[in-house]
Amino acid sequence: MKISALTLHSIAIADPPLRSSYGLHAPWALRTIVELETDDGVRGVSETYGGERPRAALEDIRGRVVGMDPFQLAGLYGDINREAVADAGVPGGRSQEWLVPGENPLDRHNRTFAAIEIACLDIIGKATGKPVCDVIGGRVRNRVSFSAYLFYKHAGGGGDGAYADEYGEVLDAPSAVRECRQMIAQYGFREIKLKGGVLDPPVEIETIRALRREFGGGVPLRIDPNCAWSVDTSVSIGELLREELAGGGYLEDPCPGLAGMSEVRRRLLAKGIDTPLASNVAVTSFAAVPEAKALDAVQIVLSDPHYWGGMRQVQYLSHLCGVLGMGLSMHSNSHLGVSLMAMTHVAAACPNLTYACDTHYPWQTAKDEIVAGGRIQFVDGAVEIPDKPGLGVELDYDQLARGRERYEKVPFRKRDDEAEMRKHVDPNWKRVLPRW
Amino acid sequence: MKISALTLHSIAIADPPLRSSYGLHAPWALRTIVELETDDGVRGVSETYGGERPRAALEDIRGRVVGMDPFQLAGLYGDINREAVADAGVPGGRSQEWLVPGENPLDRHNRTFAAIEIACLDIIGKATGKPVCDVIGGRVRNRVSFSAYLFYKHAGGGGDGAYADEYGEVLDAPSAVRECRQMIAQYGFREIKLKGGVLDPPVEIETIRALRREFGGGVPLRIDPNCAWSVDTSVSIGELLREELAGGGYLEDPCPGLAGMSEVRRRLLAKGIDTPLASNVAVTSFAAVPEAKALDAVQIVLSDPHYWGGMRQVQYLSHLCGVLGMGLSMHSNSHLGVSLMAMTHVAAACPNLTYACDTHYPWQTAKDEIVAGGRIQFVDGAVEIPDKPGLGVELDYDQLARGRERYEKVPFRKRDDEAEMRKHVDPNWKRVLPRW
Repeated sequence: MKISALTLHSIAIADPPLRSSYGLHAPWALRTIVELETDDGVRGVSETYGGERPRAALEDIRGRVVGMDPFQLAGLYGDINREAVADAGVPGGRSQEWLVPGENPLDRHNRTFAAIEIACLDIIGKATGKPVCDVIGGRVRNRVSFSAYLFYKHAGGGGDGAYADEYGEVLDAPSAVRECRQMIAQYGFREIKLKGGVLDPPVEIETIRALRREFGGGVPLRIDPNCAWSVDTSVSIGELLREELAGGGYLEDPCPGLAGMSEVRRRLLAKGIDTPLASNVAVTSFAAVPEAKALDAVQIVLSDPHYWGGMRQVQYLSHLCGVLGMGLSMHSNSHLGVSLMAMTHVAAACPNLTYACDTHYPWQTAKDEIVAGGRIQFVDGAVEIPDKPGLGVELDYDQLARGRERYEKVPFRKRDDEAEMRKHVDPNWKRVLPRW
Repeated sequence: MKISALTLHSIAIADPPLRSSYGLHAPWALRTIVELETDDGVRGVSETYGGERPRAALEDIRGRVVGMDPFQLAGLYGDINREAVADAGVPGGRSQEWLVPGENPLDRHNRTFAAIEIACLDIIGKATGKPVCDVIGGRVRNRVSFSAYLFYKHAGGGGDGAYADEYGEVLDAPSAVRECRQMIAQYGFREIKLKGGVLDPPVEIETIRALRREFGGGVPLRIDPNCAWSVDTSVSIGELLREELAGGGYLEDPCPGLAGMSEVRRRLLAKGIDTPLASNVAVTSFAAVPEAKALDAVQIVLSDPHYWGGMRQVQYLSHLCGVLGMGLSMHSNSHLGVSLMAMTHVAAACPNLTYACDTHYPWQTAKDEIVAGGRIQFVDGAVEIPDKPGLGVELDYDQLARGRERYEKVPFRKRDDEAEMRKHVDPNWKRVLPRW
């Protein structure tokens, strides 16, 4: 069994005007759908970052991929990462502080490999009649829980204006509660994550408190300002939200850098507050995990098969966090159903996954879904491992063609939340870290 | 696909009178051959520790294994290890200081799981037409190198006296060089490991020096006295063998315990000697790896799919050692071709395997081999991944029956090297650590 064809589909999907400390989501998010086919006619699929650079990186390894045995993935990983070793000395390591996911040159090898690995695992699953979670070692759960991923947002549904605005404007605590209520009613989520770092801290503090009042102590809460706060602000917010972030919640990347996170932790602990700190900014590579542990800067690492180097690397990360006594959660990016299923399968095969995963899925729509049969269903906030081989999804080629058409019409080829912010909200906006 | 049958074959194989700090090998080594069969007729095999207790542990999980999907291994691992958590508080952790491999109650869950996992991976390989190394992520090498594993020994070939004594008595430096020459001529090994802790240190030091004179600096040398030396003796031998253990060699478990190993390391480094310390005694569990790293007590961990919990756990160990900047080698025990192939497949799938693996294989004979077609071939000290599905071996059922017959005649049901030592060498012998 050899890979005989690699097909890349660059698509665009509508994305609402969501806010974060990086800026504003553009009306379109870009994704790349990767299709592999073997000489005996088995097809595998994956979904990864969109736009020019991720696609070019995949084109670069076409010659290495076509002709390879889809089982022999570790060799491909080694070949792709041979070049990456040279990156090790880059100042700042692999920090995601200033770069949106998919645009950090330091994890491009991992991203590129992951897109091939996931499609190969889909092939292996289909060839053996087994779900991918079982191909990679076996599920430890049949259902994977996700969080309600709340964003402050402007009015609008994204895209060309023909997309419904399900959630309307959300720029204060009451509208965030309304957004959450809607999302939970539709998906059944049982944990809540708020993307913060957008509004003045008192508004975000009040949002978390309002969510706690509305949903009660049984629904864990987290807030992720993506490094928008100083150490002092992080400590004082950690103190103010001491009760709200307890009971299964966490404080994610409150400030930039491991040293800052470590200081926040130390000062909170000195006040008797042990709210765990999570990160997908300061910790984006294996080398940073023991460092974060030694500094006690991070207690929960956010995995992601897309940029950590695929499903097996996420399993390694899960194991490493278990050995070091750290928790594991999962990061997400704007995505469709293929990514959602990849996230679900790897999450099902990670014994040490200790939190509900992030997902942007509620922010995308059926109109853009490329999975045959339409949107993946959530029950009680969870996605079930389907009783189907591979990832359990097939492509809808008509929908895929529509996605390619939209891509052709989109005027940009990479994500730039800062530019969008200047264009639509404030012509003088600049990303400042820390802002508060 | 479900497991429909689990068959256990307790066998005995001739074992020469090899010496170590544990005592003397009995004339027979005990092994258990595990056969699994699926409802669609695919058979998988593994080889594990022999005698009553390992077999009883496998019998205990028969009900959990029969009926299971051979792909869903992580669930089985979790179920078997649920009980193991209670072991965590046992004083001394999982140290292998006093117990021969296969008899340590603290890794029984890992050993039992491994025997099932390896047979399941053989099944998956056979069902998919792929070698096991590719089933678990893909090979990074096609050939796996092993070391010449030298033992001091008494005269005799082991067994019932009808086995040839290929190597004769080896109780000094010249005979050890002769043993090594013979072994290298036959197998082509390019690294050498001497099991020490048997004779007075000056004899063992002279043995290592004689090996260096005979084989030159291009053949890395290691010595493993299994904790027989005090910290002072370890430091002074490390100093005396400074040049001989350099260039890819190591000092393995010179003294007991992580604290002792750490002191040896510190004192050697203070003298400018950076001979790495390896361990499969002080480090036999994941929890001990970061501890060993923090103390700088161990620089190379010896893996082993049999007691570390199977192939995927060895992959996790390989990854963990890579992240922590530690080396990885592989431990061995008296074994036949099924174990050899399991070791070869997992070694082929571990990018961070940094040394040639141990193997006792030269100490066993074709007369006892249960693999169809006879003994596994070595070329230049390496075993090649066969172009066959699964582990790449089938059982010779006539040979297996002979192994079972031998087992019935053997008067003991567990390995006890101390008792053998008293019986055949010195009626007053006691294991003393450290002895020198």
